[in-house]
Amino acid sequence: MRIGCGYDVHALVPGRKLILGGVEIPYPSGLLGHSDADVALHAVMDALLGAAALGDIGKHFPDTDPKYQGVSSMVLLKEVQSLLQQKGFRVNNLDVVIVAERPKLAPYIETMCQNIAGVLDIERDRVNVKATTTEGLGFTGREEGLAAQAVA
Amino acid sequence: MRIGCGYDVHALVPGRKLILGGVEIPYPSGLLGHSDADVALHAVMDALLGAAALGDIGKHFPDTDPKYQGVSSMVLLKEVQSLLQQKGFRVNNLDVVIVAERPKLAPYIETMCQNIAGVLDIERDRVNVKATTTEGLGFTGREEGLAAQAVA
Amino acid sequence: MRIGCGYDVHALVPGRKLILGGVEIPYPSGLLGHSDADVALHAVMDALLGAAALGDIGKHFPDTDPKYQGVSSMVLLKEVQSLLQQKGFRVNNLDVVIVAERPKLAPYIETMCQNIAGVLDIERDRVNVKATTTEGLGFTGREEGLAAQAVA
Ligand SMILES: [Mg+2]
Ligand SMILES: [Mg+2]
Ligand SMILES: [Mg+2]
Repeated sequence: MRIGCGYDVHALVPGRKLILGGVEIPYPSGLLGHSDADVALHAVMDALLGAAALGDIGKHFPDTDPKYQGVSSMVLLKEVQSLLQQKGFRVNNLDVVIVAERPKLAPYIETMCQNIAGVLDIERDRVNVKATTTEGLGFTGREEGLAAQAVA
Repeated sequence: MRIGCGYDVHALVPGRKLILGGVEIPYPSGLLGHSDADVALHAVMDALLGAAALGDIGKHFPDTDPKYQGVSSMVLLKEVQSLLQQKGFRVNNLDVVIVAERPKLAPYIETMCQNIAGVLDIERDRVNVKATTTEGLGFTGREEGLAAQAVA
Repeated sequence: MRIGCGYDVHALVPGRKLILGGVEIPYPSGLLGHSDADVALHAVMDALLGAAALGDIGKHFPDTDPKYQGVSSMVLLKEVQSLLQQKGFRVNNLDVVIVAERPKLAPYIETMCQNIAGVLDIERDRVNVKATTTEGLGFTGREEGLAAQAVA
């Protein structure tokens, strides 16, 4: 068994969709990035790649490659799963925490978990998504961006 | 075996008790929160719940519920352990890092470990508590708050 | 099997060498600290010590001890490995993410992995080093310092 950790941050800006764990969340701002900037899935992918000693998402999906412009991170997660499979790994379980002052994410958590479990083809109870705030402190507290941490 | 991660932040304010790992630490400020705001135990509980795919502490102990007003996080940790037991899990080991510019936490670490091991009913050497600073940087460096990260 | 997590931060200042994962990186600033301030190896050591319930690097290598002034963190990592061995542990795998707005770390990652695997005497494919930015946000985004997170 191997373990890995992921950490990612994206800036919150007006006029972008907010997509987290593959769920589009109704909100006046969204995350800036080359792909859909799904910070939760990015942290998950980095944890999975890390556990398999396959580098990180910047190595596999460079943000200078036009192929990944606006791509859904669900598609990238599927590619990560293929990479793991090729190396003979399967996902045992994973846990991710989304750090966001707002919006309230509780209504979307279950769908995020199902999305991730579906793409990775593992049981729902091997996936956990949590949300927390930083109580108004730091860049997440000032709502300049969202962060996510994951282990797998 | 399953793994999970926890991350939590609370603001440091005058006139509150500073409670970390179940230890009351003599200090002119303390952590603001609905419960006792024990940021270390909150991160630990989120890691444990995450590993078991049981959501997070916000789901189990909503900060809008008057039942949890001022509650000791040691009591909440016991409840988390019961939830794990009901699902057939036992705690293998856990590790937490408290991010605090001040005060020096070294004198309290051993008691925190014993507290956590005691509540979870596991051997002392399956629990580890660490402390670090952010060298004056960020919200923890400015002593606006404390953060904690855990894995289990 | 045990797991641990590490988190460390050092300030970025002119006139110091930038050493990450045991690699000296050509850059006009470097990390401030009592040792060589290798934030990546510090997070790795804390994750390893945490997994073994051996405390943290502050306990084993106090920054008030002149013995550790300017010491290479590669030497400290070797000492950590000895401590683990004495307790009957061996390293299964580890993953670390370096949080740095700049410089680009991709050209140095492979050497960092080889350094860590070499000191710990484990296969190269049990070590993973990742890099990410915080997209200009927070103290790492303002290039006031670098951070690192690890699991082992
Ligand atoms: Mg990203
Ligand atoms: Mg809390
Ligand atoms: Mg350090």
